[in-house]
Amino acid sequence: MDYQRTKLKWNGWGWLDQDFDLHGREEGLWDFLREQLGVEDLPNTPAMPLEEMPLPEIRISTSQVDDLIDLLSADRVCTDRYERLFHAFGKSYHDLIRLRRGILDEVPDAVVYPESAEDLAALTQFATDHHLALVPYGGGSSVVGGVEARSGRLAGVLTVDMTRMNRVLHIDAESLTATAEAGIYGPQLEEHLQKHGYTLGHYPQSFQFSTLGGWIAARGAGQQSNRYGSAAKFFAGASVVTPSGTLHTLASPNSAAGPDLRHLIAGSEGVFGFITEATVKLHPLPSSRDYRGFLFSEFKAGSDVIREIMQEHVDVAMLRLSDAEETWFLSQFKSIGKPASWASKATSAALDLVGVGEKPCLLLVGLEGTTASISISRAAIARIALSAGGIPIGAKPGKGWYGTRFDMPYLRDSLLDRGVGVDTLETSTNWSNIQHLHQTVRNQIATSIRRHTRVGTGEPIVMAHISHSYPDGASLYFTFIFPMSADSPVTQWRAIKREVSDAILENGGTISHHHGVGTVHVDWMTPEKGDLGIAMLKAVRDSLDPHGLMNPGKLLP
Amino acid sequence: MDYQRTKLKWNGWGWLDQDFDLHGREEGLWDFLREQLGVEDLPNTPAMPLEEMPLPEIRISTSQVDDLIDLLSADRVCTDRYERLFHAFGKSYHDLIRLRRGILDEVPDAVVYPESAEDLAALTQFATDHHLALVPYGGGSSVVGGVEARSGRLAGVLTVDMTRMNRVLHIDAESLTATAEAGIYGPQLEEHLQKHGYTLGHYPQSFQFSTLGGWIAARGAGQQSNRYGSAAKFFAGASVVTPSGTLHTLASPNSAAGPDLRHLIAGSEGVFGFITEATVKLHPLPSSRDYRGFLFSEFKAGSDVIREIMQEHVDVAMLRLSDAEETWFLSQFKSIGKPASWASKATSAALDLVGVGEKPCLLLVGLEGTTASISISRAAIARIALSAGGIPIGAKPGKGWYGTRFDMPYLRDSLLDRGVGVDTLETSTNWSNIQHLHQTVRNQIATSIRRHTRVGTGEPIVMAHISHSYPDGASLYFTFIFPMSADSPVTQWRAIKREVSDAILENGGTISHHHGVGTVHVDWMTPEKGDLGIAMLKAVRDSLDPHGLMNPGKLLP
Repeated sequence: MDYQRTKLKWNGWGWLDQDFDLHGREEGLWDFLREQLGVEDLPNTPAMPLEEMPLPEIRISTSQVDDLIDLLSADRVCTDRYERLFHAFGKSYHDLIRLRRGILDEVPDAVVYPESAEDLAALTQFATDHHLALVPYGGGSSVVGGVEARSGRLAGVLTVDMTRMNRVLHIDAESLTATAEAGIYGPQLEEHLQKHGYTLGHYPQSFQFSTLGGWIAARGAGQQSNRYGSAAKFFAGASVVTPSGTLHTLASPNSAAGPDLRHLIAGSEGVFGFITEATVKLHPLPSSRDYRGFLFSEFKAGSDVIREIMQEHVDVAMLRLSDAEETWFLSQFKSIGKPASWASKATSAALDLVGVGEKPCLLLVGLEGTTASISISRAAIARIALSAGGIPIGAKPGKGWYGTRFDMPYLRDSLLDRGVGVDTLETSTNWSNIQHLHQTVRNQIATSIRRHTRVGTGEPIVMAHISHSYPDGASLYFTFIFPMSADSPVTQWRAIKREVSDAILENGGTISHHHGVGTVHVDWMTPEKGDLGIAMLKAVRDSLDPHGLMNPGKLLP
Repeated sequence: MDYQRTKLKWNGWGWLDQDFDLHGREEGLWDFLREQLGVEDLPNTPAMPLEEMPLPEIRISTSQVDDLIDLLSADRVCTDRYERLFHAFGKSYHDLIRLRRGILDEVPDAVVYPESAEDLAALTQFATDHHLALVPYGGGSSVVGGVEARSGRLAGVLTVDMTRMNRVLHIDAESLTATAEAGIYGPQLEEHLQKHGYTLGHYPQSFQFSTLGGWIAARGAGQQSNRYGSAAKFFAGASVVTPSGTLHTLASPNSAAGPDLRHLIAGSEGVFGFITEATVKLHPLPSSRDYRGFLFSEFKAGSDVIREIMQEHVDVAMLRLSDAEETWFLSQFKSIGKPASWASKATSAALDLVGVGEKPCLLLVGLEGTTASISISRAAIARIALSAGGIPIGAKPGKGWYGTRFDMPYLRDSLLDRGVGVDTLETSTNWSNIQHLHQTVRNQIATSIRRHTRVGTGEPIVMAHISHSYPDGASLYFTFIFPMSADSPVTQWRAIKREVSDAILENGGTISHHHGVGTVHVDWMTPEKGDLGIAMLKAVRDSLDPHGLMNPGKLLP
């Protein structure tokens, strides 16, 4: 795959030549959204073209640019419009509405492309000498402002694009680990591993446009993290170039030699240094996959089933439970532009008859492994799900989900063209708090949208699912769709985000299960970690980066 | 159980009224050891009695003692000989040879017994005001000097015995977690949990004499950690009283809100503060157990079987593979004083016949769970073990091990009475390095013992086992028995320890898999973590304990 920057959208998701394919059902979608959101009209709100974007002046001198070229090479130091805008932000709703309207406080003064740890050591020295901020940039898929160009109190911003450091360095077949450079994209890494019969199994929704280093820096989790582990789990060791030198962690399976520094690197979001290479834990490529669905009449029944499956330690790759609103929305979305058939009406009546009601909750169960291990898991899950009133609905919903699992972010761009806002947020909590947190956050999102949006008679669309689960609790992932404020979408979004984040913290949730902190969640770090926790992290940062060059404004308040 | 200090040995292992029961086979043991070690005689080397011990003067004033009594109460501030000596050291070989000979540089000036986080906050304030070191002390079973009374540059040492903080505060049955005060002993915690149908499942060899807080502070691992997790894994959240205030971590199942502070607390060995309460992950009490043995002709064959079992993610509680030397030693030890029977001779011949040779390696496989889960695991393990040439030898060796799994430390006291030194050390590494590390460390231990011991014609006894395993590697646990130097056993031990620890680090091992760092491994922390890693940890320490009151001399060089 060619990840040259000009092949990728600078103000939207993914490949430049790819959009969400509605297969001619556009008008049906707009009708449906107008009805749901209770608005008369969905205005055309096109993005500002690249050449019209107001671009802040470059704050570094031409002689500094020349010095950078001497350090690297001319083709690895970019100051052109496209590169600077491409690297200004990540891919959050907040980022896109700013990019689409030309609301830019800062963009990188230059974008540099290191090819080695030595390049990075030279860059940190350069940044130290010239008081410049360094922003590590992998795939740039952060949805929390993790790669935003911020100079803080420094003289300018060098965004350091890591994607030329993309080699797999070593596979240890005996220990089932691989060591790779951190700028490698998901598909590049998996292609190499799968050629040798292995997989990392880490497939976040951003898989195609995110990198190994970013996964670890943000403590991400893939859709099949139940089986393959979140980044903090599959991460076995790293080299990190910091402004104070290079840190190497021992890739030991387990150690009692004091605190585990790997858990400081996982989640460090570039504020401690550049992850240059990482060792990760592999799995044999599964020979078999089985994704299928169950319906439950209540979210709690489905969530109890997930809890039991996790507490029995069943080998499962994915458990994804949509609440009634999400289940309904997804089924409506699928049938947009299709005539309500006799068959679908009959299905609805049948659902009612078998007792899951007309607004059931869909649980997708994903199994991966050998046919033998899958059949053991399938039996355990059927036992647990059926005895909790689950209705098995076969492999079709699983297949449907699997086939389109990376596509949704493309749809956002289409919605933004029509004044429709869509954002997601996520948290996690213990099982004993999950129903309460689900309800509270749902209600808060709806309340905040109503408060900060001039809507007609309709309702904002708020839906949620459990996507990552553990013996002691699970994540909750919320999606909300709302009429974008015509005048001040950024203010609208910030107000909603603030109130909902407060509600998450006040009700026992974490500010993020797998998106990270970045600039967007930084105000909730002190409530979550406490003053002392923040003091500990700042002390670590100061020990590695005394001048605060690394990714200012992210992670630490 | 009554853990009053006077019920416990102050200079040996465990209960005052309990010794290793040799069932009248003492003479056989001494004959066997004389022969193995190649020494003419095993001298009587009794321990110095309590009343003869040279006791350093108390360095705090009587008015300070009075102030402490005002803070706590008279019965919770101890300055008597027994309490001071009891709390001077942990339970390592290095500790016991010093205690038995009266080699004491420092002992606590007072021993205090807090009963609440408020008591601990008052004690940290008192220590700050009076420049005193605070040594957190749980069960005192550290074998790495983790609870040694060291004042560093301070005016004296208060050892803070946590064992009155021993309540289970809460069981969250839905999330399968429990929160307890950190000074609770293993048996107290398990008794409470098991009454409610749960277990933590953490059974280190020190189980009877170690505490929840100590397990977490030292990043310990129980004998069944494959199933129940090491302390760093089962640890879900804590409150920590530090000299700068109290740190609470969110007990969230998983979070991307920056680095995971729990992994700074796990392994902190009291240098950041006092763990006052901890939340841990529970399991339903297993309804069934199955421990059984296999023999392999080579260590590598057995170790490959463990690797395969782990990489297939089979649900197994314990995999314990003794090398040929340990297998032989344990079988000899068991048969001491028993006539070599026709049956045992036949067994030996049979072993040879089936192809495992006369010096096989014993793998103990421990399964816990439901009868259904155990039967699934048993089938998988049989398949893997048999196809690798393993000979199943039934449940007897498993039962034997299980019944005596906490007893071995008592034997050390008997050996020390007869001039026989015995110590253990442990490490871990990746599978691709495990054979090399096993051989190298074995050889180094033997070489170092020979170099630093005046032996006759015999050989030191050096043996090892794998006791904790992971998909990417495993631990190696070495036991060595040698004639104790009559004049300078401490010098002898230090020389051996230094050379072997160097060899471990030079050959890719960690300085400890589950014993911790304490004073004994502190010199190998920089080689393992690197200068930057140590700088990070010191920065964290300074942010919480700017005057360095907490457990001086441990963990950080």
